[in-house]
Amino acid sequence: MQIHRVQELFKQSPVGQRVSVCGWVRTRRDAKNNFSFLEINDGSCLKNLQVIADGTLENYETEVKKLGTGSSLRVEGIVVASQGKEQAIEIKAERVHVYGFASEDFPLQKKRHGFDYLRTIGHLRPRTNTFGAVTRIRHTLSMAVHDFFHSRGFFYVQTPIITANDAEGAGEMFQVTTLDLDKLPRTPEGKIDYTRDFFGRRTSLTVSGQLEGETYAMALGNIYTFGPTFRAENSNTTRHLAEFWMIEPEMAFADLDHNAYIAEEFLKHVIRAVLEQNQEDLNLLDSFVQKGLKESLQNIVAGPFARMTYTEAIEVLEKSGQKFEYPAKWGSSLQTEHERYLTEVHLKKPVILTDYPKDFTAFYMRLNDDKKTVRNMDVLVPQIGEIIGGSQREERLDVLLERMQEAGLKPEDYEFYLDLRKYGTAPHAGFGLGFERLVLLCTGMGNIRDVIPFPRTPGHCEF
Amino acid sequence: MQIHRVQELFKQSPVGQRVSVCGWVRTRRDAKNNFSFLEINDGSCLKNLQVIADGTLENYETEVKKLGTGSSLRVEGIVVASQGKEQAIEIKAERVHVYGFASEDFPLQKKRHGFDYLRTIGHLRPRTNTFGAVTRIRHTLSMAVHDFFHSRGFFYVQTPIITANDAEGAGEMFQVTTLDLDKLPRTPEGKIDYTRDFFGRRTSLTVSGQLEGETYAMALGNIYTFGPTFRAENSNTTRHLAEFWMIEPEMAFADLDHNAYIAEEFLKHVIRAVLEQNQEDLNLLDSFVQKGLKESLQNIVAGPFARMTYTEAIEVLEKSGQKFEYPAKWGSSLQTEHERYLTEVHLKKPVILTDYPKDFTAFYMRLNDDKKTVRNMDVLVPQIGEIIGGSQREERLDVLLERMQEAGLKPEDYEFYLDLRKYGTAPHAGFGLGFERLVLLCTGMGNIRDVIPFPRTPGHCEF
Repeated sequence: MQIHRVQELFKQSPVGQRVSVCGWVRTRRDAKNNFSFLEINDGSCLKNLQVIADGTLENYETEVKKLGTGSSLRVEGIVVASQGKEQAIEIKAERVHVYGFASEDFPLQKKRHGFDYLRTIGHLRPRTNTFGAVTRIRHTLSMAVHDFFHSRGFFYVQTPIITANDAEGAGEMFQVTTLDLDKLPRTPEGKIDYTRDFFGRRTSLTVSGQLEGETYAMALGNIYTFGPTFRAENSNTTRHLAEFWMIEPEMAFADLDHNAYIAEEFLKHVIRAVLEQNQEDLNLLDSFVQKGLKESLQNIVAGPFARMTYTEAIEVLEKSGQKFEYPAKWGSSLQTEHERYLTEVHLKKPVILTDYPKDFTAFYMRLNDDKKTVRNMDVLVPQIGEIIGGSQREERLDVLLERMQEAGLKPEDYEFYLDLRKYGTAPHAGFGLGFERLVLLCTGMGNIRDVIPFPRTPGHCEF
Repeated sequence: MQIHRVQELFKQSPVGQRVSVCGWVRTRRDAKNNFSFLEINDGSCLKNLQVIADGTLENYETEVKKLGTGSSLRVEGIVVASQGKEQAIEIKAERVHVYGFASEDFPLQKKRHGFDYLRTIGHLRPRTNTFGAVTRIRHTLSMAVHDFFHSRGFFYVQTPIITANDAEGAGEMFQVTTLDLDKLPRTPEGKIDYTRDFFGRRTSLTVSGQLEGETYAMALGNIYTFGPTFRAENSNTTRHLAEFWMIEPEMAFADLDHNAYIAEEFLKHVIRAVLEQNQEDLNLLDSFVQKGLKESLQNIVAGPFARMTYTEAIEVLEKSGQKFEYPAKWGSSLQTEHERYLTEVHLKKPVILTDYPKDFTAFYMRLNDDKKTVRNMDVLVPQIGEIIGGSQREERLDVLLERMQEAGLKPEDYEFYLDLRKYGTAPHAGFGLGFERLVLLCTGMGNIRDVIPFPRTPGHCEF
């Protein structure tokens, strides 16, 4: 017999039909006269399906009345119109097959649990309402990412995870090795002999797929990556993960204006998908996790983002009369307090800030004619801050070489990247978005460890 | 002015319209009377767009006649019906803007290059016809993977890359560390002190997301993973990569029959997508890379796969009268020659083999009542061999503990996995598919290093 998913039953309300549902018991309530109500969840949606089980079932006393929270079962029965207000339908059980009882120490009992505690049972937390909702929203966002780019003719390119490069000349990296650390091979000079490591050289986990992505954009036109990236930074904050997923589109023949246009369209597209497809999940999160979540998402998709150069932003901040902990000054980076003032007080909407001073930007960002600023952009969102960073890339070989020299990078380490400028160079641009920051934005969750299935942070690599 | 993609122009044939196209020059041919023909490719499709440039262009002598293979440009002009048979339309250029000439040492001249050589210029090979086609087919397959599962209510779950587990109790792993190998911290006993490593313990790159995937299936119902996995095996073959992408669906309340059904549907769905969406690319590969490619793909989607138990397969092989290098014998694993005989000679179609002897299968595969075989499956395809491996998982706690003991695994290392059997256990099943093997199948390429953008193999970690 076909298994029906709870979400479909709620959608179709097939009253009178015989169905079969599998799931886990959330609660059991026994009434008088040999009646019990089981709330069943199968993960397909937030709402539980109510099942009415009674003494006519052959295992009513022996099994059904022993079903505790977390038990798994299959119910066969008839869909009936519900008496309650909560839902339109329920199931009158004709057969209850128990797959597995949950032993009494099942940690997820009916009461609400703190997120800190749930993090210690990361293998069970997806069975809670909140983490079920986060997982479904994360899924919607993933699909919307692919959908956005695919429908616009971008090709998905899986850039490498293990790399011998350091994409930004910065960022602490994890080393990857098969050397036996207890018997490290040495060169005659006493150095570690990496020619005997798996790849014959020292290798690390990637911090960005951008440089490799550029090689494909310069052949296929529009591409994007969507894969894991890594930072070995000792950051114990609610915004940092050592392992996180990143989305990096790259577009040949595009300038920064087009880049900003695509970034804005992209962000609105994926948020709209959640608003449309995860209404129940959003209602839960709006009620119990972050009041005003839905409204803040609706605000992002409602109107155009503001555009402003870094220089204009500094002027606004200087004239604001606002007292900042760090006064805003041309040439220094914007602090969170500055970004919040701009998006939450001054503009009251997202803003795309462009043309930052070259001194604190990456070597590959295209130098402006003023020689002081570069064609980069940050997309800032109220409450969250920077969610997207991008730039037009430096396509002029001579300027790029100069910038690399300033940054202390050796051209011979970037030959493949320089080749893109030697052979048919073209304007191109792209951006990067930390996927978990996006999930934070769309779920209202407060800690980034709670929006990725199994978070990796300093001192934590469980499961 | 909007940039038009070549693929769209061929689709729409907007004769008479003024368009703007960007791309790279594949060839330039100068005719008499101040006429030149430029073949332009922008990566959106295999076919080049022909551009007619003539002496009326202000930069005809100074630039256009110097455009070599690999140069990048923007052409503005009028779409005209083509005189040639190759294509319906071409562009009569009104303006040619050169973004970048390719210096004369551009390695991709018109002649065909060997794949071995192209591997040494992995950053430029996507500009060739073959690698453009492979990239587009890889993209189609990626989209079809997500589409298949999403449309059936599966949730995409990103399982962790860095792990402290070894998923199968086998498989050589890459170590991940931030310890300074020149100054390794030591415990008082002289061992390496991993409490001082980034995660406070010894960590590696994942070989499979299955075990973590199961935790989400036991909460959300149907899930799948699609991400990179790693094997530190010194395998220098045309079928092995140290870093490859894997797809691992996992379904709660599913048995092996359903698993096999989904695997077959899945394979047909993604192959059909390529047959429908990449006809030109397939024609190229069928002509120049593997004759008969399209027919072999059509054969896979044409009819039902065969089903056969391992025991039945051994009987077929024993009775075949065929002389094998390794005689087929119950209890030993099937060799490539056996698999080829079954799919190419005996059945002439894909087959799903099930119920292998438990001795050479993983601990988590469900033990059959005969106590000798397990509920696993391999999907074998003509020419390629095994493309999918899967199983129904052992959901019985006591049996699982016994199997782990036999395999020499410590229960305390798998507590989270055992919890799934303690708290509401349920039948569940899933499978794994190496994505690059699928791309090999669908492109007819002979070497797995040529179907992933930047291959990682022993001794090779370029770009």
